[in-house]
Amino acid sequence: MKLSELAKMHPKKVRELIRKGEVDLPTSGMSEGYLQANLAILPKKYAYDFLLFAQRNPKPCPILEVLDEGSPITKIMADGADIRTDIPRYRIYKDGEYVKEVKDLKDLWRDDFVTFVIGCSFSFEKAMLEADVPVRHIEDEHNVPMYITNIATLPAGIFHGNTVVSMRPIPYKDIVRATTVTARFPATHGAPIHIGDPSIIGIKDIDKPDFGEKSIIKEGEVPVFWACGVTPQAVAMASKPEIMITHAPGHMLILDKKDAYVSVF
Amino acid sequence: MKLSELAKMHPKKVRELIRKGEVDLPTSGMSEGYLQANLAILPKKYAYDFLLFAQRNPKPCPILEVLDEGSPITKIMADGADIRTDIPRYRIYKDGEYVKEVKDLKDLWRDDFVTFVIGCSFSFEKAMLEADVPVRHIEDEHNVPMYITNIATLPAGIFHGNTVVSMRPIPYKDIVRATTVTARFPATHGAPIHIGDPSIIGIKDIDKPDFGEKSIIKEGEVPVFWACGVTPQAVAMASKPEIMITHAPGHMLILDKKDAYVSVF
Repeated sequence: MKLSELAKMHPKKVRELIRKGEVDLPTSGMSEGYLQANLAILPKKYAYDFLLFAQRNPKPCPILEVLDEGSPITKIMADGADIRTDIPRYRIYKDGEYVKEVKDLKDLWRDDFVTFVIGCSFSFEKAMLEADVPVRHIEDEHNVPMYITNIATLPAGIFHGNTVVSMRPIPYKDIVRATTVTARFPATHGAPIHIGDPSIIGIKDIDKPDFGEKSIIKEGEVPVFWACGVTPQAVAMASKPEIMITHAPGHMLILDKKDAYVSVF
Repeated sequence: MKLSELAKMHPKKVRELIRKGEVDLPTSGMSEGYLQANLAILPKKYAYDFLLFAQRNPKPCPILEVLDEGSPITKIMADGADIRTDIPRYRIYKDGEYVKEVKDLKDLWRDDFVTFVIGCSFSFEKAMLEADVPVRHIEDEHNVPMYITNIATLPAGIFHGNTVVSMRPIPYKDIVRATTVTARFPATHGAPIHIGDPSIIGIKDIDKPDFGEKSIIKEGEVPVFWACGVTPQAVAMASKPEIMITHAPGHMLILDKKDAYVSVF
């Protein structure tokens, strides 16, 4: 199956191919125009603190849907996506440590699991590209650079820690447009949280990201920082929950709602 | 103390007067330009379901702040407001039944109480008035008419029920403006959820609201409906929690953040 075919396919059909094991790739570019989402699965005993953390920190942790306890089936953002099988790859963490990557959760599913479907930056990057704002890590085909900042999240129960940001180098002439087009999508991290001097948010060396790969900042470009979906994962992991399951990086849940569905203006 | 004096006073000062018992009035018009909020206090055992209900139904239930279990002190939307004393009047409900109105919660406070601070429509009504959109129940000095619709909320745990709406009659020429100015404030119910024919959302007689008082709809005006903060209260009450405490109608919590702070554009 070619990516060009998957790009034109409805999310329901792509999820079906993923479920059958016929598609096992990063999902970027599939079902063009549709939302993709991060996944965090936690036992119910952590769910209130995690939901409260998200309520208090909507920019790094924009919740699109929370599934009922024990249910692996989406109702709101996708019609009947099965969380156990409809994502190409998952990562299992135990007591805050990475254990392994798996292709489905059929044998791991528990009746006390609560699934959080969380907005991802793919949507606002497309909005940037459509507005002719360059996105360096897409141009250069590498993973977006991410940094742990000195910006504390608002803690909730057992969850606390600093905000993780993603960085995109933006030409001066495009900074305002990059801000306004991404502000339309609070459900996928929204407007930047910092523009310019990285040291102000505690980043010592812009060429040494904490996650992902460095982006080249050209003459006349300014680093612009957005709250990143790695924040809730990092924060949750730091509190060492007995088990936590996420999507594998880049292997997202593809939803039935289009990007425009969550645009606020 | 005259309302005209309270109108110009900072929220911190007004809350202090309320705390001392020197102000015991509906808060409409006090601390002009600042947000006011609905209050819902529930024991922790109901808190996850209530927070999830709010996440799934943000239009009737826009959460501005959730206080930590047992804490009566706000941190985010107001600097140190004391939930036990800084609201003029409270209502106590037990097993879903109204019990009494009280002036403070000093003797009633419990270590397992979780306080939800919820956006209220005062903010968007001011935005309407500033945009020259008439607000009939303010003109005619009566309580806004509210109706139970046939629009089901998305249930969460023990909480389920239909959406309650408030209605404002709007002249044809102002309908679009009424929609766009209120859409700026999703944290205070946002854009309307229905415009026109009341029967479509299950309202049999527009002159017989389920709560509040009827508004006169003049020739050339259309009834416009917004999701109402009574929804979460009605839904919570229907599930008969052992105890639930709310503000008394019109007696709101005045916050330190201005309306513009929660505007999305």
